[in-house]
Amino acid sequence: MTFTSLEDLRAACENLPMGSDSAADAVARRQDTLTKPQGSLGRLETIAAWLARWQGRDMPKLDKVKVIVFAGSHGVTAQGVSAYPSEVTVQMVANFAGGGAAINQLARIAGAELAVIPLEIERQTGDFTQEPAMDEAEFLAAVSAGYEAVGKDTDLICFGEMGIGNTTPAAAIAAALFGGGAEKWTGRGTGVDDAGLKRKMTAIDKGLALHAVSLSDPLKVAAALGGRELAAIFGATLAARRHGVPVLLDGFVCTAAVAPLARLHNAGLAHVLAAHVSAEAGHRALLEALELKPLFDLGMRLGEGSGACLAVNIVRSALECHTGMASFAEAGVSEK
Amino acid sequence: MTFTSLEDLRAACENLPMGSDSAADAVARRQDTLTKPQGSLGRLETIAAWLARWQGRDMPKLDKVKVIVFAGSHGVTAQGVSAYPSEVTVQMVANFAGGGAAINQLARIAGAELAVIPLEIERQTGDFTQEPAMDEAEFLAAVSAGYEAVGKDTDLICFGEMGIGNTTPAAAIAAALFGGGAEKWTGRGTGVDDAGLKRKMTAIDKGLALHAVSLSDPLKVAAALGGRELAAIFGATLAARRHGVPVLLDGFVCTAAVAPLARLHNAGLAHVLAAHVSAEAGHRALLEALELKPLFDLGMRLGEGSGACLAVNIVRSALECHTGMASFAEAGVSEK
Repeated sequence: MTFTSLEDLRAACENLPMGSDSAADAVARRQDTLTKPQGSLGRLETIAAWLARWQGRDMPKLDKVKVIVFAGSHGVTAQGVSAYPSEVTVQMVANFAGGGAAINQLARIAGAELAVIPLEIERQTGDFTQEPAMDEAEFLAAVSAGYEAVGKDTDLICFGEMGIGNTTPAAAIAAALFGGGAEKWTGRGTGVDDAGLKRKMTAIDKGLALHAVSLSDPLKVAAALGGRELAAIFGATLAARRHGVPVLLDGFVCTAAVAPLARLHNAGLAHVLAAHVSAEAGHRALLEALELKPLFDLGMRLGEGSGACLAVNIVRSALECHTGMASFAEAGVSEK
Repeated sequence: MTFTSLEDLRAACENLPMGSDSAADAVARRQDTLTKPQGSLGRLETIAAWLARWQGRDMPKLDKVKVIVFAGSHGVTAQGVSAYPSEVTVQMVANFAGGGAAINQLARIAGAELAVIPLEIERQTGDFTQEPAMDEAEFLAAVSAGYEAVGKDTDLICFGEMGIGNTTPAAAIAAALFGGGAEKWTGRGTGVDDAGLKRKMTAIDKGLALHAVSLSDPLKVAAALGGRELAAIFGATLAARRHGVPVLLDGFVCTAAVAPLARLHNAGLAHVLAAHVSAEAGHRALLEALELKPLFDLGMRLGEGSGACLAVNIVRSALECHTGMASFAEAGVSEK
């Protein structure tokens, strides 16, 4: 779908499918017959029901799992907010193509097909301390690119991002949507020193002040303070919801990217499972604000969809237990 | 190895290999050259170094991963400590053979070979409220069976257990080794009600009093209050250490089973990685007492090695990132 106005996009976000109650209920009923104490697989049981609800199938499947990494370049890097030079975005896209990045290895172990979608990475967004990162047309183009990237035939999807400097727009979005100013949300990203951290916070507070008039509209926040890859992840997450594709959520940048959806619809992220809490400073607070409970905390802070991809085999395990286990009756095991 | 006296076994526990510093150091050095901010893969980086140390290889491998489930029957079930009848142990061993249990599905997703080793499951141990669970010969036989089950050709191993009633001996061992009485360590296991929980605590406190003279010796604790499958896991974990096989630790019962090794050698569990913290009441405190930091908490409380097995793909992911990623120089990516 190509969105041609903010109002089209807003309408698509406000009218969301709620998944299949009957599929989720069927899973819960079957779980209680399987050869284990009821509830003893913990979150694996609720993951199976979550898959069923959003796929709309009593017996979910994971035949086609995808990881899409969106890449973008950020004008705000001019403010000295990253430990790495901005050309690394382009270099890392080449590294993805060559199979040398972490996400290449993680996708292989997850049995997931990896796609990388660069979004005009030779052209930086506007520096949000000076102007909006994207005007409305640019923002809608990025959202639409993300939306179009998600196929209905996908059973589970992970989104990742690459964009030197992009923890700065992520923190700016979090601050705009949830308050607390730069200090609450700003972390060291790829590893800035104390002076770099101060520059990040200054840039974010400057952006919040400059775009104050837009802060009450989650979509305008995403356009003025975000980035193309964040906008694409927003659009892709919306497409996943509308196409019946459950989403595994990666780290701080991805979470900030989808946060506007939770602001536009109170169950906007119900089809999203938080894979992990990253080591980036603001992530735990952002997950809490969104009432998302991560599956694990391994101190990761790489991005690329790495944490989400690591969760794929947990979801596969949940599904295999659900579909493959014998019932007490089938196995001739005595009940309580 | 067949242990013929407690003193033989004690000597084997007190003189342990400490792994390869040079292999662990080589991994840490290589990690810092790979195309990611240093440290940004969090625990995946330390897991790679841990594999290297205990396999004694600069480039570790995971070609052969095993899950061994040991099963035992418990005399203390006479005290009404479980929600399930004790014949379920035998029935579940049949379910493992038929492929219908959770661990069958989880081992498949983990790419791990599953073996189930029943330890005289038609003959219960002694009821430890009345007599020692095992005499010295029975205990050493179970430890030896576990030891013999671990091959040197294994790259990573998970241990699991099946034994109706076995959270009771596990809690008794934890209380004996770390103090605090039954109340600190007793949980609901497969799901006892309040009256059952009270019976468990009563049985444990009775066992601790009856075997008070043995409580200062971790091996005598394991014999008097434990069970055959716990003793086998102890022996198997010792064998893994001596054979250079890193171990993924499952839940409360497995952790209690290996705890005596930490009491006999202050680095006795250095080759053991805690996969998860289970929902069983005493597990978090027991991991803390052993200074083991679990990889995840998914509210699982099934046993069978299920949590350990779920961690295998995290370890595989750590290894694949380590061996498969390109360096900054190889990929032509600019550094900080």
